Amino acid sequence: VKLQDLPTPCAVVDLDRVEHNVERFSARARRLGVRLRPHVKTHKCLEAARLQVEGHFGGITVSTLAEARCFAHGGFTDITYAVPIPTDRLAEAVVLARRVDRLNLLVDQTTTVEAAEEVARATGSSIDLFLEVDSGGGRTGVDPESDDGVRLAQRIAASSDLELRGILTHAGQAYDCRNRDAALEVGTLERDVMTGFAARLASAGVPVQEISVGSTPGFAAVGDLAGVTEARPGNYAFFDAFQAAIGTCTLDEVAFSVLVTVIGVYPRRREVVVNGGALALSKDPGPVHVDPDCGYGVVASAYGTRPIHTLRVVALTQEHGVIRAAGELDLHQLEVGTRLRILPNHSCLAAALHDRYWVARDEKVVGEWRPVRGW
Amino acid sequence: VKLQDLPTPCAVVDLDRVEHNVERFSARARRLGVRLRPHVKTHKCLEAARLQVEGHFGGITVSTLAEARCFAHGGFTDITYAVPIPTDRLAEAVVLARRVDRLNLLVDQTTTVEAAEEVARATGSSIDLFLEVDSGGGRTGVDPESDDGVRLAQRIAASSDLELRGILTHAGQAYDCRNRDAALEVGTLERDVMTGFAARLASAGVPVQEISVGSTPGFAAVGDLAGVTEARPGNYAFFDAFQAAIGTCTLDEVAFSVLVTVIGVYPRRREVVVNGGALALSKDPGPVHVDPDCGYGVVASAYGTRPIHTLRVVALTQEHGVIRAAGELDLHQLEVGTRLRILPNHSCLAAALHDRYWVARDEKVVGEWRPVRGW
Repeated sequence: VKLQDLPTPCAVVDLDRVEHNVERFSARARRLGVRLRPHVKTHKCLEAARLQVEGHFGGITVSTLAEARCFAHGGFTDITYAVPIPTDRLAEAVVLARRVDRLNLLVDQTTTVEAAEEVARATGSSIDLFLEVDSGGGRTGVDPESDDGVRLAQRIAASSDLELRGILTHAGQAYDCRNRDAALEVGTLERDVMTGFAARLASAGVPVQEISVGSTPGFAAVGDLAGVTEARPGNYAFFDAFQAAIGTCTLDEVAFSVLVTVIGVYPRRREVVVNGGALALSKDPGPVHVDPDCGYGVVASAYGTRPIHTLRVVALTQEHGVIRAAGELDLHQLEVGTRLRILPNHSCLAAALHDRYWVARDEKVVGEWRPVRGW
Repeated sequence: VKLQDLPTPCAVVDLDRVEHNVERFSARARRLGVRLRPHVKTHKCLEAARLQVEGHFGGITVSTLAEARCFAHGGFTDITYAVPIPTDRLAEAVVLARRVDRLNLLVDQTTTVEAAEEVARATGSSIDLFLEVDSGGGRTGVDPESDDGVRLAQRIAASSDLELRGILTHAGQAYDCRNRDAALEVGTLERDVMTGFAARLASAGVPVQEISVGSTPGFAAVGDLAGVTEARPGNYAFFDAFQAAIGTCTLDEVAFSVLVTVIGVYPRRREVVVNGGALALSKDPGPVHVDPDCGYGVVASAYGTRPIHTLRVVALTQEHGVIRAAGELDLHQLEVGTRLRILPNHSCLAAALHDRYWVARDEKVVGEWRPVRGW
């Protein structure tokens, strides 16, 4: 089967590019001297995760308990669930933890730690926890400057039912960066906040073994991770138009795209409409801080995937994508039935909309990957 | 099972509200004297469609061939696929058309009409077509003022392999309305454009039988549809925060919501974080033209679904939703483990992210609906 034979819209993964991206970050982790615990939330499928952990210790990061279950079933035995565990799903997590060597849960709230202790006690388990630290992203995590974080670490360490495995952060502000230099700063800050907090914990009597950092842009740019033990980048397996815009990758490295077909040509508006809308691409606004007119992804040729910079995805409705030309519409290049590739703004959100990815080398389909869904 | 027992995040459909909404629009279609051909793209499940067609002729509208296949299998025999048919999926549509009484395809391009004729001839079928008209939405459809549209209608009518079933429009600009009065204007314009174009066609020797209009806001507001034969609203089965903001419904009529749990409380930022992010709610920007600070949906109490207007969903990442309080955070009302309901901005996009909806009356789960996915 070739890409030409596939019904559109459909998700296409370029296997050569995945392998290249995985090798690039794998080498980077070795060079930086940290354990690589790749996040699998971008692709959510076993095949890609297996490529990511090759040559590393085998640990992965997940964003849902459904992923944790699926990857445990697929043979992964060391899993960090990197969203603060909801108290009402602790019991379920404990059951899952018994099936693997290690399931690390994330906490940053006293209430959650108390609830975890209660569940551990009631079930005769020990629960492995990472304390989440806010390194400037302002989403979740304890404030590394406050005493609350230190007290919470002490609280966990003092419990005979809980195991404090380490501290973890995700510097989400890396996505506000405009270029690699800015990402380097974020990556460095992430390191310094975490090693500084670890030192505070040590002097408060709570030495931690693991210091884990996240975020693909920061990891791609940082020069030195001395003191950090583990990194959890994820998006790099696929990359996307956003990462290219902020300099984490080139457009040639974007491995995930959506194949679409032109269903209407409107020369007066200089627009064509394709059969890929919000349900094929997601409505992520993209790198508007770098390019306010970025639209909903980068348009590329269907085969060969050369970016066509004169075209922009200006609007998405449920099943329609509206593509506008900067100048006159090239009616020979873009007629009804023409296929195009869209490199979405945010591959994590776009990929999750598809039940399967066609895996291709050049134009040849060499496999089919099925991501896990739900929670 | 009660809602309290469900793992979060999950999609909840309030059956009382669906029944109320369906009855409201059903009565409206009768009063306006048009056939109701409800769109099923919002919920994509048989159970809701069966409620929608009750007391009507049974025809439905779909947004994908996957929906068409699923609903044909579920007993629906008169289906309009209301996205211009991609030429590379015509053969597949013809195969499906043989399994139902009527599968209407949408066209607005000469190339597509020619391709349809070729496929019809090659397979010995007759293909039923609607000509799409642009009534101001500026997405797809022929310009009703130009001669191109008339010529295309004549082209279809002259073909012995194609059947021109009627003309169809979707006034997408109804979503730019700020209130019901504006929607009334759009609904009226939609009617006038279509009856006017039908008159042009009649005088050009192509009388059409069906004149079909779309858009939930226009249909909800319009006072008179004289000359129109059919309406295709869809979102009304669920409604959403967007429709409430522009006056198509009240928040009490919104039947689709996502149940989430508070996983972190951050009093200094006046924020809580819940386990419902972009993959549970979608990143639809919502009715920003009415309320620039609308955020990603309306926050409501988990049980009883009373809107909490002091709370806003200010940010979404893949699995995190950040909710900010207008004033001081009520730490008794919002502690870790508290459940909330989010009424998403756009129920069509949010519902499509879920593999199942829990169907509830009050707090009791009375069913489980599974939407069809893909294309």
